[in-house]
Amino acid sequence: MNAEIIAVGSELLGPHRLDTNSLFLTEQLNRLGIEVRWKAVVGDNEADIADAVMRALSRADLVLVSGGLGPTADDLTRQSVARALDRRLNLEERILESIERRFRARGLKMPEINQRQAMVLEGAEILDNPAGSAPGQWLRQDGRVLALLPGVPGELEAMFAQQVRPRLEKFATGQVLVTRVLKIVGLFESQVDEMAAPVYSRYDNPATTILASPGEIQLHLRAASATEAQACEALNELTRRLELVLGDHIFSEDGQTLEEVVGMYLSMKGRTLAVAESCTGGLLAERITRVPGSSRYFRGGVISYSNEAKMRWLDVPRSLLETCGAVSSETARIMAESVRHRFEADFGLSISGIAGPSGGTAAKPVGLVYVALAEVGRHSEVVEKRYPGARDRVRLQATQTALDMLRRRIK
Amino acid sequence: MNAEIIAVGSELLGPHRLDTNSLFLTEQLNRLGIEVRWKAVVGDNEADIADAVMRALSRADLVLVSGGLGPTADDLTRQSVARALDRRLNLEERILESIERRFRARGLKMPEINQRQAMVLEGAEILDNPAGSAPGQWLRQDGRVLALLPGVPGELEAMFAQQVRPRLEKFATGQVLVTRVLKIVGLFESQVDEMAAPVYSRYDNPATTILASPGEIQLHLRAASATEAQACEALNELTRRLELVLGDHIFSEDGQTLEEVVGMYLSMKGRTLAVAESCTGGLLAERITRVPGSSRYFRGGVISYSNEAKMRWLDVPRSLLETCGAVSSETARIMAESVRHRFEADFGLSISGIAGPSGGTAAKPVGLVYVALAEVGRHSEVVEKRYPGARDRVRLQATQTALDMLRRRIK
Repeated sequence: MNAEIIAVGSELLGPHRLDTNSLFLTEQLNRLGIEVRWKAVVGDNEADIADAVMRALSRADLVLVSGGLGPTADDLTRQSVARALDRRLNLEERILESIERRFRARGLKMPEINQRQAMVLEGAEILDNPAGSAPGQWLRQDGRVLALLPGVPGELEAMFAQQVRPRLEKFATGQVLVTRVLKIVGLFESQVDEMAAPVYSRYDNPATTILASPGEIQLHLRAASATEAQACEALNELTRRLELVLGDHIFSEDGQTLEEVVGMYLSMKGRTLAVAESCTGGLLAERITRVPGSSRYFRGGVISYSNEAKMRWLDVPRSLLETCGAVSSETARIMAESVRHRFEADFGLSISGIAGPSGGTAAKPVGLVYVALAEVGRHSEVVEKRYPGARDRVRLQATQTALDMLRRRIK
Repeated sequence: MNAEIIAVGSELLGPHRLDTNSLFLTEQLNRLGIEVRWKAVVGDNEADIADAVMRALSRADLVLVSGGLGPTADDLTRQSVARALDRRLNLEERILESIERRFRARGLKMPEINQRQAMVLEGAEILDNPAGSAPGQWLRQDGRVLALLPGVPGELEAMFAQQVRPRLEKFATGQVLVTRVLKIVGLFESQVDEMAAPVYSRYDNPATTILASPGEIQLHLRAASATEAQACEALNELTRRLELVLGDHIFSEDGQTLEEVVGMYLSMKGRTLAVAESCTGGLLAERITRVPGSSRYFRGGVISYSNEAKMRWLDVPRSLLETCGAVSSETARIMAESVRHRFEADFGLSISGIAGPSGGTAAKPVGLVYVALAEVGRHSEVVEKRYPGARDRVRLQATQTALDMLRRRIK
C-alpha cells in the first residue's frame, strides 16, 4: 500500500518554511506498512489544490492532505476537493455547535467566518479535532482513501492518533516497514558503493539507499515484512554482510553520531580526553560536548588560534613554528601531547590546518590539515589530509577524522 | 514567470529528511521575480522522476530538479529525464577528464561508476560544479526551461550562483521581488511583534513575516516593484520606521550573522578577543571562527570543562568554586578576566552554566547561565540568564548573549 502526502499553504512555497508535518505522517504510515511514494506542496489556490488531489488519487492508495481547513478566505481545501470530486458541501449542525461551544468556553462569540469549518463533503466521515476547531474529513473515492487534515502540527498529530490511525489499521496489509541507518566514516561515497553495491544489490528487500554528507556516508536499509521481528531479522542479515565488506568503517547502526560513539567508548573504559584546536576553532570540542554527560570524560581544550597561543599554552617551540610552520605534522603532534599532558587526560587530540578561503600556498594549500592523537604511554599518531570544499566542509571533515582516529584507537 | 521545484531522493520520502534545498532556491528565484508555485518530492525511481518532470514541464515556465546526479546506481535523474524527453545521453569527455582530475588531486583513481556523471543530455548545456564532481544540466523544452542540479546543498548553492542565476537573469521580466531580513537579538518573538506590528501592519507592500529561532528573531520584509531600486526604496522606508521602535536590538539588515557583525567591529577597531567556555564547550569559539579572516582578531580560547581546568588555566580559586560554585557570577567574571589577560587580548568573554539535561538543582536549575565580558581597563560585566529549552538551545542562546554583549560594547 502506498501513499501521497499533499501539503497545502502558500507559506510553504516561500523561502522560509518547510512542510514538517510530512515527517510525522511518514513515520506513522511506515509503522503501518504504508510507504510514502510522493509528496507535493501547493499554495492556497483552488485549481492547484484540486489538481494535486485528482492526480494523487489517480496513483496512490492513500492520499493525506494537510492544511487549508482554517476559517479564513485562503483556506480552500474543502471547496477545492468538492470541486475536484464533484461532491457537494453540506453544513453539519453538530460541528457548527461544537465550534460555537469552543468560542463560548473562552467567552467569545464565534465569528461568522468559522461557519465554513462546519462544511462537510458529501459522503465524508468527520474526523473530530481534539486540539482545535477545524474537523478533518475521511472519504473513499474509486477504491482510494482521501483524508483531509489540519495544518497545525499539534492538531494534525492529535487527529492522526485518535481518528486516522484506527481507520488505517483496518487497511494495513500486515506489512511493517523498518529502517536502519549504517553510518560510515573514512571512505568516499563511490568507494562505499564499490564495496557495498555487490552485497546490497542482491537484495530487493531490504532496499538500500546511499547518502553522502561531508565526512560521513550513510546506507539506509529498509525492510518490509509481516512482523517487526522478521523485518529486523532481514536487516540483521544484510547488516552482517555489509559489515564483512565495510568492516570498522561502519561506526554506527542505531542512529548514534560519531561523537556519541566516541563518548560511549570513553565512558565505558573510564578514560578521558582533551583537545587542542587551531583551524577548527572549537568545533571538535563543541561536537564532543553536544553529548549530554560528556563532562564525565571530556576535560577541556585549548583553541590556539595564534602562534603565541600555540607556544604559551601548548609548548610548541618558536623554532619549530619558524622552521616547519603552524600547519605541520610536528606542530600537530606537540599540540596533542601537550594538551593531553596539561589537562592530565588519557588522550589528546589536535587539529592544525588551513580551512580557507585564504591562507593557502602552493606548498600548503587550503584544505591541508594535520590531525594528531596522543595517548599516555604510547607513540603519537599524526595523519595528513587534504580535504576538498569550502571552509565549513574542511572544518567538519577535520573533526570527523579526529573523532574517528580516537574511535579506532579505543574501540 | 513561475517555477516548480522537484526534489529527487528516496531519503526525502522517509521520516528523517526534508528537502531543504527548495528554501534556498525559492529565495533566489523570488529575487529574480520568479514565483515558486509547486513543489514535489519523488524517490529514486525512474518512472516517478520522469512523470514528475513531464508534469512540471506541462505547467511551469521553469523546472528545477535537485538530486539524483551522483555516481551510484540509485542516481537516476539523468536517465529518467532522457526517457521523459526522448533525448539521448552522450559521454562528455571534458567532464570525464575534470572528474578524473578531482580524484587525482587527492591521490586517488576515479572509480568506474563516476563515469556516469559525465553523461549529458542531447542538447543540454553543462552547468559546471564548482564544489563537487556532478555537473548540472540546462535545457529548453517546448519553450520551458529545465535545470538539473545536484542534491548536495553546498554544490547546489555554488552552481546556482555561478551558472543558473546568470542564465535566469536573461528571462527575468517585469516585477522584482526583493527580500530584506532584519535580525533581532535580546527580545522574545511576542515582544518584537508588539513593538513592530503597529508599524509593519500599515504596509501591504513590503509584506512582513516574523520568524523566531532560539536567541534570534527575524523580520522578513518582501517588496514587489517594477525595479530593484523602487523595491529597495520601499524596504528602506519600512526599515527606518522599524528601527525607530526596535533600536539597537536590530543587529543585522543584510544577512550578516551575529558573529560576522562582531567580527566586523573587532576588525574595524583593530581589537582582539579571547574566550573561556564551560557549558557551551567550544560553541562560542566555533561560531567566532566560522568567519573567514577571524584569525585577525581572535586570539583563542579555553574550554574549561572541569573544575581543575578552571583553576589551572583560568585562575579561578578553589575556595570560590567551593563557596559559590562553577556556575556563578564570580566564576564567570574571573574566567573572562583571566582568559583576556592570559591571551593578551582586548576583550575576554566567558560562559558558565548548566546546559542540561541533568546537573540542575532547585537553586541552580538547567538553563541557568552566567555570561561575562572583560575589557582591558574597564570593570567587567556579568549577566545571569535562565534560558528555556533543551541542551542545544541553552548552549546556542548563551553564545548569542555573549556575542551580543560584545556587540553592544564595541559598536
